[in-house]
Amino acid sequence: MKNDKNISQSVINRLPRYYRFLNRLLENGITRISSAELSKIMMVTASQIRQDLNCFGGFGQQGYGYNVEALRREIGEILGINDISTAILIGAGNLGKAVANRHDLLRKGFKLIGAFDSSTSVIGTTLAGIQVEDVKKLEEFCLREKPVMAIVCVPASAAEEIGKILNNCGVKGIWNFSSYDFTHDFTNLKIVNVHLSDSIMTLSYLLKHDVENCGD
Amino acid sequence: MKNDKNISQSVINRLPRYYRFLNRLLENGITRISSAELSKIMMVTASQIRQDLNCFGGFGQQGYGYNVEALRREIGEILGINDISTAILIGAGNLGKAVANRHDLLRKGFKLIGAFDSSTSVIGTTLAGIQVEDVKKLEEFCLREKPVMAIVCVPASAAEEIGKILNNCGVKGIWNFSSYDFTHDFTNLKIVNVHLSDSIMTLSYLLKHDVENCGD
Repeated sequence: MKNDKNISQSVINRLPRYYRFLNRLLENGITRISSAELSKIMMVTASQIRQDLNCFGGFGQQGYGYNVEALRREIGEILGINDISTAILIGAGNLGKAVANRHDLLRKGFKLIGAFDSSTSVIGTTLAGIQVEDVKKLEEFCLREKPVMAIVCVPASAAEEIGKILNNCGVKGIWNFSSYDFTHDFTNLKIVNVHLSDSIMTLSYLLKHDVENCGD
Repeated sequence: MKNDKNISQSVINRLPRYYRFLNRLLENGITRISSAELSKIMMVTASQIRQDLNCFGGFGQQGYGYNVEALRREIGEILGINDISTAILIGAGNLGKAVANRHDLLRKGFKLIGAFDSSTSVIGTTLAGIQVEDVKKLEEFCLREKPVMAIVCVPASAAEEIGKILNNCGVKGIWNFSSYDFTHDFTNLKIVNVHLSDSIMTLSYLLKHDVENCGD
């Protein structure tokens, strides 16, 4: 693999998409694919695909195409999802429950080891096999169990306080479903935001204007 | 506004982000901003910002910067979120409930007028002021009420059948939370996918490698 620093954000952003399409190919029994064919189903140019995969040393063989399983494994390795890190959930409302119960998601490199909420009606209930604890116990839990990542599903108004606790306790990353912007105040944390509002606005745009789907 | 066809997908993808940052500026009482300042908080180059906004005719005044409110209104207009279209929810489990109750989301150009599920424990319950109906009534409802958009929160295995009904009944767009790929079978529909798996894999990558947050 080439030096991480040389890989652009846009290539990184495309890697999960490659992984997803390769998964789908394998599910359909397709074990070998040319960059031209992959280009067609992924709706990007073949040269873009060759260029992207070359960032990581390339996996194709001229004239033979890509071995789908080997390519998926390598991309999984680069993405780090073949190893398992620990994760906790903060905010066990509808969204938190939905995310924690999507086992296909959490198996992408993470294992849920704790869940927290502030509501007495939720504390003590069980979620994905884990008992939801009072968020007051979050700090103590993090110091003891050292979870690597936190899934934050609390309202924006509660998120800053949660960010401080996580940051102080050595949590490394946040999968952020709140609309709070962690990146400005917590520069040590790795943050990936799920901006549902961006997504619905994009749909609004596509419906208003006569433009093609982006085929993501 | 220039011809829609000339606006690249990447510019369209950035518009909701502009809208979000402009919203935040207004919330903080900032009414005017230079492209240099906007560039700093959005972590993109000032020339990228000028280039993007010029796609739509530009809104800045040399030396005076952008009027934040006017710019937000114009971008909202381009995104189509100043008008209200009708939407329905299909799948009122935890995820569906979470999305339907995020009023800030649905106010981005849409109004929920119906909700459907196949589970007898959910049918008849009330969600965001709307009674959840049996999904068997979906077709009849769509033919009568002509919703513009459907939020699909059903498992992938149920999604194709739902897609057929929506497509036949004249629904124009899908906000897709299932992992089913509608774009191949339903080319008339505008589709925006929420790929939670892509997002968690990106976080896995950031945690594994020493790379900066993308500041989205």
